[in-house]
Amino acid sequence: MSPVPPAGGLSDTAASGRVIGSTTRKRAGAVLDSGEIEGIVTDYVHGRIPDYQMAAWLATVACRGLSTAELAALTRAHTIGGGRLDLSRVDGPVVDKHSTGGVGDTTTLIVVPVVAACGVPVAKMTGRALGFTGGTLDKLESIKGLRTTIPIEEIVPTLTSVGMVLTGQSADLTPGDGATYALRDVTGTVESIPLIAASIISKKSAVGADGLVLDVKTGAGALITEQDRATELVRTMLGLAAEFGLNARAVLSDMSQPLGPAVGNALEIRQALAVLRGERVPGLWDLCAAVCRLMLQSVDAALTDKQAMARIDRVLDEGTAYETFVRWAVAQGADAAALEAERLPSAGRRLTITAPESGWVTAIEPRSVGNASLLLGAGRLTYDAPLDHGAGVLLRRRVGDRVDQGDVLAELCYDGGDVAAARSLVESAFRLGDTAVDAPATVQRVFEPGAA
Amino acid sequence: MSPVPPAGGLSDTAASGRVIGSTTRKRAGAVLDSGEIEGIVTDYVHGRIPDYQMAAWLATVACRGLSTAELAALTRAHTIGGGRLDLSRVDGPVVDKHSTGGVGDTTTLIVVPVVAACGVPVAKMTGRALGFTGGTLDKLESIKGLRTTIPIEEIVPTLTSVGMVLTGQSADLTPGDGATYALRDVTGTVESIPLIAASIISKKSAVGADGLVLDVKTGAGALITEQDRATELVRTMLGLAAEFGLNARAVLSDMSQPLGPAVGNALEIRQALAVLRGERVPGLWDLCAAVCRLMLQSVDAALTDKQAMARIDRVLDEGTAYETFVRWAVAQGADAAALEAERLPSAGRRLTITAPESGWVTAIEPRSVGNASLLLGAGRLTYDAPLDHGAGVLLRRRVGDRVDQGDVLAELCYDGGDVAAARSLVESAFRLGDTAVDAPATVQRVFEPGAA
Repeated sequence: MSPVPPAGGLSDTAASGRVIGSTTRKRAGAVLDSGEIEGIVTDYVHGRIPDYQMAAWLATVACRGLSTAELAALTRAHTIGGGRLDLSRVDGPVVDKHSTGGVGDTTTLIVVPVVAACGVPVAKMTGRALGFTGGTLDKLESIKGLRTTIPIEEIVPTLTSVGMVLTGQSADLTPGDGATYALRDVTGTVESIPLIAASIISKKSAVGADGLVLDVKTGAGALITEQDRATELVRTMLGLAAEFGLNARAVLSDMSQPLGPAVGNALEIRQALAVLRGERVPGLWDLCAAVCRLMLQSVDAALTDKQAMARIDRVLDEGTAYETFVRWAVAQGADAAALEAERLPSAGRRLTITAPESGWVTAIEPRSVGNASLLLGAGRLTYDAPLDHGAGVLLRRRVGDRVDQGDVLAELCYDGGDVAAARSLVESAFRLGDTAVDAPATVQRVFEPGAA
Repeated sequence: MSPVPPAGGLSDTAASGRVIGSTTRKRAGAVLDSGEIEGIVTDYVHGRIPDYQMAAWLATVACRGLSTAELAALTRAHTIGGGRLDLSRVDGPVVDKHSTGGVGDTTTLIVVPVVAACGVPVAKMTGRALGFTGGTLDKLESIKGLRTTIPIEEIVPTLTSVGMVLTGQSADLTPGDGATYALRDVTGTVESIPLIAASIISKKSAVGADGLVLDVKTGAGALITEQDRATELVRTMLGLAAEFGLNARAVLSDMSQPLGPAVGNALEIRQALAVLRGERVPGLWDLCAAVCRLMLQSVDAALTDKQAMARIDRVLDEGTAYETFVRWAVAQGADAAALEAERLPSAGRRLTITAPESGWVTAIEPRSVGNASLLLGAGRLTYDAPLDHGAGVLLRRRVGDRVDQGDVLAELCYDGGDVAAARSLVESAFRLGDTAVDAPATVQRVFEPGAA
């Protein structure tokens, strides 16, 4: 057979030779040196390596794993050629948080204004929906006029004036991560612990906040479903964060059912605003409270749990958390009125799903709920598909609840999409049983300094 | 970060979803079912999966390996949509052979006419040079007028009239192998035992000869260098061959030094013709004799080693092996005169490399010699580079030989190319020592039915 080079990207012969050799050696068990890893990522960013060669290299790394030194090199490689925020111009310490994503997870929209209202500025870069999981950036687009991504040079002024920034991830900070993340997403190499860790910590390192809280999900709706592997991801990220001089804490949280009752962009914005106005939603609030506490303690180690919770409760009860969110939205271009419930996008049609029999809710399969929301228009099946920001699913019951036949389990909110398929997914997501079950704890484990 | 799809191939959403899921599950340790494997290869052949997704899948398979059932499915998948030779129209049994390739390996050019002259037709499809190894197809292009690739429908008539066929591999027979082989070659996923086995056995299955001899190389110049892994490749291929109803024997042969003295296209044609005229070149001839014997015995199990060798010796001594080669070359379009030594391409310049000191030749590093030949113009650095068919290296000594200072070790034959680099490679390839060493046996092990 005459070998014909596949189409799909121009290749620099020397760069291709290096990545092919690296793939072969990595598969055979070699440890790659840091110059080699940094060279490959840089070559890919500059288009000297075609997609298919980088895909084979990443897939091989995902299979074989990375040593501590290789992991640090890959993390550094992600930031080569990128900028770095200079948060030293902000008065006092700044905190950051990251979640590995899930269904009905509006944590960011709640904890960022709460912590900011407590007087600790929060700088958070955020992303779009991937697969069945939601993305904060898509949710924020529900707010009319809001600039969801602001230029890097606006970050410090916005932090100084309103105490918080929520903005789309800037590929300028981590060019290597930007390029490889998109490729990993379409080649089945997302669910790799070292690749996830290098991606997240490189972005957090480029932001360079004084405190960082990592929220790693576990359970059926998480990127890493198994608890032991999710714990390994936590430990890998905490180790890597320490190596990059980041002061990080972490929480392992339950994603075996959707975190909050609202799944869908504007539905989740409404949910977050309700919490900011004082509604302590079971499950969702438990996690938000833990993350807020850790964020406050990350920049004030002397703060006790009780003191932290008192500050958090106060900003909710006094309305300053909600006010902070409004002030921030206005600072990033929205009209304050755009946050009123009736001004947010809303689906015109609702379909109620009821319990086919009496019993206890023993499970709500989060991927099915996430995919149902996606099929109603809240997510994307292709990269540039437009979203229906009003569409989604409202869950009326949680695991452990008692229901009678005919009780409402969930509502589908839609104006289009594949309603029959979404209905069937949500119906099948709810499992009813004859005996009471305990809901799993939302906060499964907290990793504080010295404890990990 | 906003995920942007990488360039490089249109994708069918459903097909992409399947291959991404398959990559993820395979990495996690799942066993893929045969429909899934066949579907992915077929989707790729039809352009429904972009290169980067297939590259990640292949790299993952190369890392994780394949079960017996997965291996059979992949082998079958390679042939889907392909034709099949109908060798039943040839009188009596037909044999085939395969070598995993190396440096100075002119075995095919010798054993095919020898076995054909013994009265057993040989149908052999062959390929081009890869990296530092030679390719029979490139060597054959040294013969003026020869059609190195003939249409499938000419194979049976040529076999019937002259007893042998040597032709370029037809991608029509194994579309899946054709597509994935080219991609593997440029993504560092060639050196995988299951992928090699599936590639070779799918092609042999599509030819469907009655007997098959596999020549697997081991040592520094082999695709799989380690002897235990090369042995594993033999066993994997023999198992797979049995599953596909192929009657296969195998030989494990030494590639720790170049097999024959000639390295380069026309140089190797001349070498093969000299052997066909009766010259028993040490090393090269030992392997050819073993392969010829196994080929004859594969279609006549009652034939003893002694009887087989007597037939082989007779066709060499009587000149019928050489005559068969000439008749075949004419049948495929060459002028008989094109085979005369002075009509074959010849380099105009020679450079002699001599022993810097007296001693014994303890090693001749085959990759260096292969790369030297390539740099002189005998091989390709890019896919469509033209070859200098006259260029190459002539080795004047083998491992174990005693040399005195100033004795000729090798000659470079060239008209251009990077002579200084080639010279340095050949000089460094020869290792001289103070004590005599035994040359490794060329035939290291023979795998006959029941013995594997």
